[in-house]
Amino acid sequence: MNKKSTAGQDHFFAIIPAGGVGSRLWPLSRANAPKFLHDLTGSGQTLLQDTWDRLSPLVGNRMMVVTGDVHATTVAKHLPDLDPANLILEPSPKDSTAAIALAAAVLYKRDPEVIVGSFAADHVIKDDEKLLHAIETSIEIAATGKIVTIGIVPTEASSAFGYVKKGPAIAGTEGFEVADFIEKPNIKKAQKFAASKKYLWNAGMFIAPAKLLLDVLAKTQPKLHAGVMELAEHWDTENRTEKLHSIWPGLDKIAIDYAIAEPAAKLGLVAVVPGNFEWHDVGDFAAIAELQSQGNSNNLAVLGSAKVLSDSSSGILVSDTNRLVALIGLEDIIVVDTADALLITTKAHAQKVKAMVEALKQTGHSDLL
Amino acid sequence: MNKKSTAGQDHFFAIIPAGGVGSRLWPLSRANAPKFLHDLTGSGQTLLQDTWDRLSPLVGNRMMVVTGDVHATTVAKHLPDLDPANLILEPSPKDSTAAIALAAAVLYKRDPEVIVGSFAADHVIKDDEKLLHAIETSIEIAATGKIVTIGIVPTEASSAFGYVKKGPAIAGTEGFEVADFIEKPNIKKAQKFAASKKYLWNAGMFIAPAKLLLDVLAKTQPKLHAGVMELAEHWDTENRTEKLHSIWPGLDKIAIDYAIAEPAAKLGLVAVVPGNFEWHDVGDFAAIAELQSQGNSNNLAVLGSAKVLSDSSSGILVSDTNRLVALIGLEDIIVVDTADALLITTKAHAQKVKAMVEALKQTGHSDLL
Repeated sequence: MNKKSTAGQDHFFAIIPAGGVGSRLWPLSRANAPKFLHDLTGSGQTLLQDTWDRLSPLVGNRMMVVTGDVHATTVAKHLPDLDPANLILEPSPKDSTAAIALAAAVLYKRDPEVIVGSFAADHVIKDDEKLLHAIETSIEIAATGKIVTIGIVPTEASSAFGYVKKGPAIAGTEGFEVADFIEKPNIKKAQKFAASKKYLWNAGMFIAPAKLLLDVLAKTQPKLHAGVMELAEHWDTENRTEKLHSIWPGLDKIAIDYAIAEPAAKLGLVAVVPGNFEWHDVGDFAAIAELQSQGNSNNLAVLGSAKVLSDSSSGILVSDTNRLVALIGLEDIIVVDTADALLITTKAHAQKVKAMVEALKQTGHSDLL
Repeated sequence: MNKKSTAGQDHFFAIIPAGGVGSRLWPLSRANAPKFLHDLTGSGQTLLQDTWDRLSPLVGNRMMVVTGDVHATTVAKHLPDLDPANLILEPSPKDSTAAIALAAAVLYKRDPEVIVGSFAADHVIKDDEKLLHAIETSIEIAATGKIVTIGIVPTEASSAFGYVKKGPAIAGTEGFEVADFIEKPNIKKAQKFAASKKYLWNAGMFIAPAKLLLDVLAKTQPKLHAGVMELAEHWDTENRTEKLHSIWPGLDKIAIDYAIAEPAAKLGLVAVVPGNFEWHDVGDFAAIAELQSQGNSNNLAVLGSAKVLSDSSSGILVSDTNRLVALIGLEDIIVVDTADALLITTKAHAQKVKAMVEALKQTGHSDLL
């Protein structure tokens, strides 16, 4: 990796929002054991730890984690190098804007020149060097007064992701202006996007001066902006808890794409740096199966501690019990075996798990969520 | 039911061999909880209890149960009306001839005119009246010096059962001479059999004077015959245990079809009474699924205590855990959920469970069998 210090890099700080239940990964992912606290790659550690390890060669321990307060102990245990001053505990989930903007505001208060980069705690990225190179490039462009997103070069026509449309190249860099953000397209549109080479996957990675992020927020969501600024003002004081309890519950829930990225793009403030590396949001079990099977669809991927006996079955088995699991003649099966709940479906139906979780809520099984 | 006493009926005694592990029903059926100790019909009681209740209107408690000694307590608890003098406990499994012949020999010693009828403990029969009528008819014919089997009128061309070929009708009865016993045919042959009306399913039910059964055995398996006769001689004495331990281990393992029924048929000693009632040997989970779904293949049959959430799935779920089981979009699935083992397969592969159990033995998982 290129270790030369580029413009803004000394002021760079990573934000890791670690939120979301991941209900399409139920019953593995639960309210008290969400996706980022699981090892979904077989790496031997959680996605959160993978994220930390991926970024630390660039930032050391200059990382701020934003997570639900119920996860405080677990996160601290999983990330021993995390400075407790850089752990933000949310009293309740308020979507990505509140999480990232509060972190940005706290970091801005500590260093007005800080450039922040937000990286989800539950994505999978292969080829760390290419990611870090893209981040370095993004920091350089961000330092010129841009919000920079890293857009993934599509490897297939996916309708599961939003897209970023490239505008003109930014001279002297590997970046482009952002012409538009496009919501998840249908498969026909996705095929056009993938063929045109003008579109990149929106992976939700944003690098920007904290001041710029907050200035945009002040225009688009003034109430939310005022809330996080007041919280940041008192964050490193004895008033933090009191302010958190009085202000946090009133904050609006909104995704950062809507609150900042899209409005900023319309103002010509957003750039995109193409990331030509393997990236997965592992949104459902079919995605995990594909990730695990390394493209060999005849494989049965196994995650966890199960003893497995399989006769010509393919798909994925996730187990955190010690039971013997015997599978015979199943194609593209998904089996998730936990102590109190068992899910069985197929890759083709992986997206329906979310609706099943909704049904569980309706039928009074919230204890299993 | 016709309650008139027919020839031989006063001397009739039912034998219920309760053996076999039912490895195609693993992991539900285990060495210490075999098929006959499960409720596979949703009746609320075990197949053994169903068998008892089915026969008792005809025989009262004139039933002798032959089972493995490890099941003594369970069987006694499930059958409170069973006379302890009529419970034969095998020190080890020795196949059907030893079990039935020992019971016949003990009963013969107590009543030389006894006519015995052997009925498996783990079959499912609907329409008890027709069964009992067939048994009464069989007793009448048996009293004339025949071994009588009740052959089931086929409802489909099954390759899963052996067949009995009818010979000439026996005048004045509903019975026929047996022309031949035929092993499980291939599907083409089975189709011919079902179409010809000359063939019945061999359901393994035999009614005969105990003396005749033992006389045939003396010719075909003299050593086995000598063994059970010596055991019977001492059965109702203080020497039973000693004799059981000295003689039983040396008895040959052989199925009653080979040791008695087929050789007797060649001697013209076997008759068949057609049984025109619903009969299932519930040999595998596909059979249970079909039994449970009442012919509606879109149904998901559920046996046991599971909380189930199913979205357009069909097949069968058997669970003796209290876990929530969520199934999405599975066709003809078989799920068997037990505390220490989970089996998932499809109806099409139900017969392969036996091979899987063999593989478990090979891989040192005998604790799960």
